Amino acid sequence: MKRRHFIKAAASTGLITSTSLTSATALAKSTATIKWKMVTTWPKNFPGLGTGANNLAKLITQMSGGRLKVKVYGAKELVPAFEVFDAVSRGTAQMGHGAAYYWKGKTAAAQFFAAVPFGLTAQEMNGWLYHGGGLKLWHETYEPFGIIPAAAGNTGVQMAGWFNKEIKSIEDLKGLKMRIPGLGGEVLKRAGGTPVNLPGGEIFSSLKTGAIDATEWVGPYNDMAFGLHKAAKFYYYPGWHEPGTTLEALINKQALEELPADLQSIVINACKVVNLDMISEYTTRNQQALDTLVNKHKVKLLKLPDEVLDRLQSLSDEVLNEVAATDKMTKKVFESFKSYRDKVKLWSDISELAYLTSR
Amino acid sequence: MKRRHFIKAAASTGLITSTSLTSATALAKSTATIKWKMVTTWPKNFPGLGTGANNLAKLITQMSGGRLKVKVYGAKELVPAFEVFDAVSRGTAQMGHGAAYYWKGKTAAAQFFAAVPFGLTAQEMNGWLYHGGGLKLWHETYEPFGIIPAAAGNTGVQMAGWFNKEIKSIEDLKGLKMRIPGLGGEVLKRAGGTPVNLPGGEIFSSLKTGAIDATEWVGPYNDMAFGLHKAAKFYYYPGWHEPGTTLEALINKQALEELPADLQSIVINACKVVNLDMISEYTTRNQQALDTLVNKHKVKLLKLPDEVLDRLQSLSDEVLNEVAATDKMTKKVFESFKSYRDKVKLWSDISELAYLTSR
Repeated sequence: MKRRHFIKAAASTGLITSTSLTSATALAKSTATIKWKMVTTWPKNFPGLGTGANNLAKLITQMSGGRLKVKVYGAKELVPAFEVFDAVSRGTAQMGHGAAYYWKGKTAAAQFFAAVPFGLTAQEMNGWLYHGGGLKLWHETYEPFGIIPAAAGNTGVQMAGWFNKEIKSIEDLKGLKMRIPGLGGEVLKRAGGTPVNLPGGEIFSSLKTGAIDATEWVGPYNDMAFGLHKAAKFYYYPGWHEPGTTLEALINKQALEELPADLQSIVINACKVVNLDMISEYTTRNQQALDTLVNKHKVKLLKLPDEVLDRLQSLSDEVLNEVAATDKMTKKVFESFKSYRDKVKLWSDISELAYLTSR
Repeated sequence: MKRRHFIKAAASTGLITSTSLTSATALAKSTATIKWKMVTTWPKNFPGLGTGANNLAKLITQMSGGRLKVKVYGAKELVPAFEVFDAVSRGTAQMGHGAAYYWKGKTAAAQFFAAVPFGLTAQEMNGWLYHGGGLKLWHETYEPFGIIPAAAGNTGVQMAGWFNKEIKSIEDLKGLKMRIPGLGGEVLKRAGGTPVNLPGGEIFSSLKTGAIDATEWVGPYNDMAFGLHKAAKFYYYPGWHEPGTTLEALINKQALEELPADLQSIVINACKVVNLDMISEYTTRNQQALDTLVNKHKVKLLKLPDEVLDRLQSLSDEVLNEVAATDKMTKKVFESFKSYRDKVKLWSDISELAYLTSR
């Protein structure tokens, strides 16, 4: 907050006494209520993602003792889902909540901060962002738009999806009509499939009527809520295309910088709290939903054959290399991401992977 | 904070004007500086663990705009490492940072909140704590001591350790003198080994001189700093005994409850931020140190044979069942932990494990 704002705010409280102006402005900081809007790409209260945005707003309001009140708007309430980035950029809303791959039209580099085929798991992604230089590059990527990004949630490894056709070899992907957006869709196309982009609300009926052969969505918790088990024969794993999808908070840079230092810290750290809380919630709810899907609904779980996964990984490398060539910033982000992924693999192989195998 | 404290604090600021007492006390909340001490079980600034405690104190001070200042004391500076629990319980310090297994003498249940052989990974542990009922049980466990616990850091999967003897079968554990504390030590004993408890500072020389045959410590980052690669022939994985060691913050209940609601929220949420930050730091630093150990120091990485891991897991089940029988509270915690572990396994197997295997 600029000095003249302090004085104005202090005056408006009617509490200026004989104490120095410094004390008075310090008080003003703590008594003036600031109101922020948070626009989101999710339907209001959407389980996991939308409720994560709600938690973020609640935490900021709570930790600031109500000095900074954040009100959440679902998609279309203030702006449509895909205008969240612009709304935060121009200051229509001070905050947004979504996923960075939605903004690939603004900058191709954004995709590396959300979900990358054969990329990083949630734990590795947070390692890269907070201690491997990733967050710094994300800031740099959004700098031209006047936006400060923060990781604010993670779904963990997603499922490969729901299929009405068994996948026994790479040949079975040929002609497959599957709802799969983004980089994963591009990879499927190169494997001979037909990626289709459908909003969440149309997935069930398209799958049920045979308009599509397969769909990915998130994981057991969100998929079961959509009833996808009633529209498909097989539930495939693992989700090679989104191994640790990161959700993001977008913060208008000027609005953030005008806050006193303590509120700035509260906003940034509340994002970290939600980042941890969401993956913890997904870990628990996915496990519970999976139990219901398998034991109650008798869903058939199948693993994609190694041959198919290997081929999808080669195609993913091709796609990522092409995306990286878009511009200088995207190349810089890709190289940092790739270097981290290649190096963390040895560690993850002898820690998480070796342990989970032994248990 | 109790009402009479508000009034006293408000009066001491000399800022009470003609506004209502409610406003004045609200101001007092934000202007009075509260000073807290945080005692820790770590040497001051110990990489990862001690620096995590430092970060926690810094975050609370920063998010509170200096209204709550937390000063960190290393082990022995104010109280010895193993008196941290008592110091927080009686209010000598308002906060502590350590690991719950240190307090098994107070309550056997505490061990389930730190590290359990063949237990939960960091991600699963956070799932259990925040969304699976674990944290509620942890509160209940520490309630008689007037302490509020919080997860405040995680090392991730630890390494099985440094060995001067190759482990080819369960027979090779017979007579093995190994520095391994806690539940892991008890399991080793049942496999015929001799668990030894040594403070960190004596490990290197004991291993070098042959006083012990093997030792576990943490992982590549901390182990390399201790120079353990200069004292042993083999570096074994995975760390079956500590698959996701949780660090804890201890908070004196009365001190917490006397804070205004916003500062209470800041203290609790700062612990979550550090919980996420520490595992992110370990993921990155372990990966970097492992690269140096393998490529520069030519350390020989070996996997414990499946037969050995299977046997250690059966013995672990025996040990955990015996610990659970200690008292009612421990049994209650064990049953919640075990139920979560058994159910999360299916989900982790088709998500993290299947994905890491495919990559």
